[in-house]
Amino acid sequence: MKKIGVALLGLGTVGGGTYRILVNNGKNIAERDGVQIDIRHIIELDVNKAVALGADLSVVSQNINDVINDPDTQIVAEFFGGIEPARTFLIKCLLAGKSIVTANKELFSKYWPELEAAAKKGKAGLYFEASCVGGVPIIRTLTQSMQGNNILSLKGIVNGTTNYILSEMSDEGLDYSDVLKEAQRLGYAEANPTADVDGFDSMYKLSILSSLAFHKKVPISQIYREGISNINKLDIEFGKKFGYTLKLLAIAKQNNGKIEARVHPAFIPSDHPLASVKGSFNAVFIQGDNVGDIMLYGRGAGALPTGSAIVSDIVFAAKQTRHQYTSFRNVDSVKSSDFNKNFLCHYYIRMNVKDETGVLAKIAAAFAKHNVSIDMMQQIGCDGGATIIFLTHETPENNLNSAISSINKLPCLNSVDAIIRVEK
Amino acid sequence: MKKIGVALLGLGTVGGGTYRILVNNGKNIAERDGVQIDIRHIIELDVNKAVALGADLSVVSQNINDVINDPDTQIVAEFFGGIEPARTFLIKCLLAGKSIVTANKELFSKYWPELEAAAKKGKAGLYFEASCVGGVPIIRTLTQSMQGNNILSLKGIVNGTTNYILSEMSDEGLDYSDVLKEAQRLGYAEANPTADVDGFDSMYKLSILSSLAFHKKVPISQIYREGISNINKLDIEFGKKFGYTLKLLAIAKQNNGKIEARVHPAFIPSDHPLASVKGSFNAVFIQGDNVGDIMLYGRGAGALPTGSAIVSDIVFAAKQTRHQYTSFRNVDSVKSSDFNKNFLCHYYIRMNVKDETGVLAKIAAAFAKHNVSIDMMQQIGCDGGATIIFLTHETPENNLNSAISSINKLPCLNSVDAIIRVEK
Repeated sequence: MKKIGVALLGLGTVGGGTYRILVNNGKNIAERDGVQIDIRHIIELDVNKAVALGADLSVVSQNINDVINDPDTQIVAEFFGGIEPARTFLIKCLLAGKSIVTANKELFSKYWPELEAAAKKGKAGLYFEASCVGGVPIIRTLTQSMQGNNILSLKGIVNGTTNYILSEMSDEGLDYSDVLKEAQRLGYAEANPTADVDGFDSMYKLSILSSLAFHKKVPISQIYREGISNINKLDIEFGKKFGYTLKLLAIAKQNNGKIEARVHPAFIPSDHPLASVKGSFNAVFIQGDNVGDIMLYGRGAGALPTGSAIVSDIVFAAKQTRHQYTSFRNVDSVKSSDFNKNFLCHYYIRMNVKDETGVLAKIAAAFAKHNVSIDMMQQIGCDGGATIIFLTHETPENNLNSAISSINKLPCLNSVDAIIRVEK
Repeated sequence: MKKIGVALLGLGTVGGGTYRILVNNGKNIAERDGVQIDIRHIIELDVNKAVALGADLSVVSQNINDVINDPDTQIVAEFFGGIEPARTFLIKCLLAGKSIVTANKELFSKYWPELEAAAKKGKAGLYFEASCVGGVPIIRTLTQSMQGNNILSLKGIVNGTTNYILSEMSDEGLDYSDVLKEAQRLGYAEANPTADVDGFDSMYKLSILSSLAFHKKVPISQIYREGISNINKLDIEFGKKFGYTLKLLAIAKQNNGKIEARVHPAFIPSDHPLASVKGSFNAVFIQGDNVGDIMLYGRGAGALPTGSAIVSDIVFAAKQTRHQYTSFRNVDSVKSSDFNKNFLCHYYIRMNVKDETGVLAKIAAAFAKHNVSIDMMQQIGCDGGATIIFLTHETPENNLNSAISSINKLPCLNSVDAIIRVEK
């Protein structure tokens, strides 16, 4: 039986969930995995949280040095979130030879190379399954199951709040603002929902997942980010008619040595496996050159699902005699030119035009002038202007932007109301 | 850089795929994972296969002792399939301290405890990701990501041939026999399709997956097996109308200390993630007590997807200083009474009855007499008899069988034409 001393930094939602799993399933873990987990420290300012969990108060303290100076604590699980004091504490732990297990996506997406350097120096491990997609083992899969592959792309629904909102808008035909209010009331969205609805949360996760997938650091500065707060239920309805479902997608691709990484609303075919990912569920779709397409799906958040990922990392880390690192190929030399920003997509465009003859010809000419090929056009209604929807063939985004600029100058145009990328 | 000597036993579809991945991605694997893989032996009777792959013929032989007696071969990947000579060869390799990596589900489902005993004795590793669901990392997930959970159930579409057939019957409205012929022509089904269409392949895989999930041996003798060869396209159509999709499911559950394991056609709600698994794709849906529902999806077979799983296991094995074993709780004491055979399901029943008054009352009375509660009844058509479809509430299968026996004795019954379980 291997005995492992563990410290929990923070007893919030995920920390509390982790504590409950370690207590309730500790005996099973010892029997099945041969690892006896001993919670030696809980660092938590609010002792009431420990009381509420029925935790042993003698291990609760507010001093990180209690952890760092304890030779019998080998693994530190961090639940503070945010940058400080997590970054400072974790680097001290790593340099002291203590492996860390974390759900902290913001810290990881911004400070991964620094954390990895400290880990290598302290010969400690760095585990972060819980930072992306709750208990769904996407990190373990990318590190322990894709060794025979070059990952070509990954596409994910990685934020439960936005997926819940878009699912409700689609299923119930409601406006964004009404669904957001309801989501906040139900606890699916924060009082300040920016991190989720503006795509920041998805962006941090994409930085982590794509860096791991491509073995090259993909900093958040190189990730295009667009949230869902401008989504109109009309477009969700039109999309449905054309066989598409709207999702907030996190997408990363690698070809010709360049990486493309973006978070934005996107239409996907309604029979694509990602389209069936509803409510607060998440999924990541990976394309490997040998394994082909695989998808991992499950709850992206929550005390117990995320706690499950933390406990999995604790047990996994406990069994390693030598920890593995990501070893980015480009950690000292990330250049903007390594990243492609001229995305190649299909586009859905909804515009309102004057109800005159010759309008379509002028708009079609503007598209053609910029080499944007039209797949489909549909006119919808005609109240004080005609609404037209275009679906383009695959086109470089620079071309699409130039075409839209030209179209915006046409006297016959009232407004371009929506441009949504389509991922087939 | 860790140097690992590998032997490939067999160069069929998966062996050939593995060889190609090791050659094409060997440099990447060395750079990313620090493992240099050296193919020291290829055991293959047909040298032409090696020639076709451009393999180094100096490593090709027909004598397993070349492998066993080579101290520089640490990992043996087996592609023979079937029981012998694979079982004899692999036990020799394990006792000689060589880890094995295999796709051999039949061998594993029948001889796992014996293989594990030899592995422990030789201090060697036993890896079998490729035995289930191609390159989809279901084994790695069950062993390395679910440590914080008790697995409550798993449900899978684990056979590509049958999923292809049922998808085509559903999408194209075709008869089973026509689709089977087409599947054979396209290479999706074997000339003798029994192993797939009669559920044997799914049964072997369920034995492996459920044994791993529950840490208890689930022998194939305890698995209920029913294939798809009696499926009528009528029932697929009716099911669709009621919001259900028909799949061949492999299901295992654990409660009250008893395990239930079964392979059979089943209706699932058409908006369930498993319903979107089409063609030759596979998926496994796991329910853990903490992680909740997760699903893994991808190609269940093929040279490169399965080769990807083999290579992943080779690299994973290469990095272990101490291999882990499943350590079944019940390996010496599997009893029939540990397994529940009185499944609790919803049922779809299609019957043909005489077109008389009072028929429904008599049939309803027969159901009621055996405590089978009816959720829905629909009469369809009336040519020389009326077709009636029943959907029941959840009921023990013994009750359902007793009710059907009673109904079969009713003079007003012409025939009970289909009974299909419904998994909600």
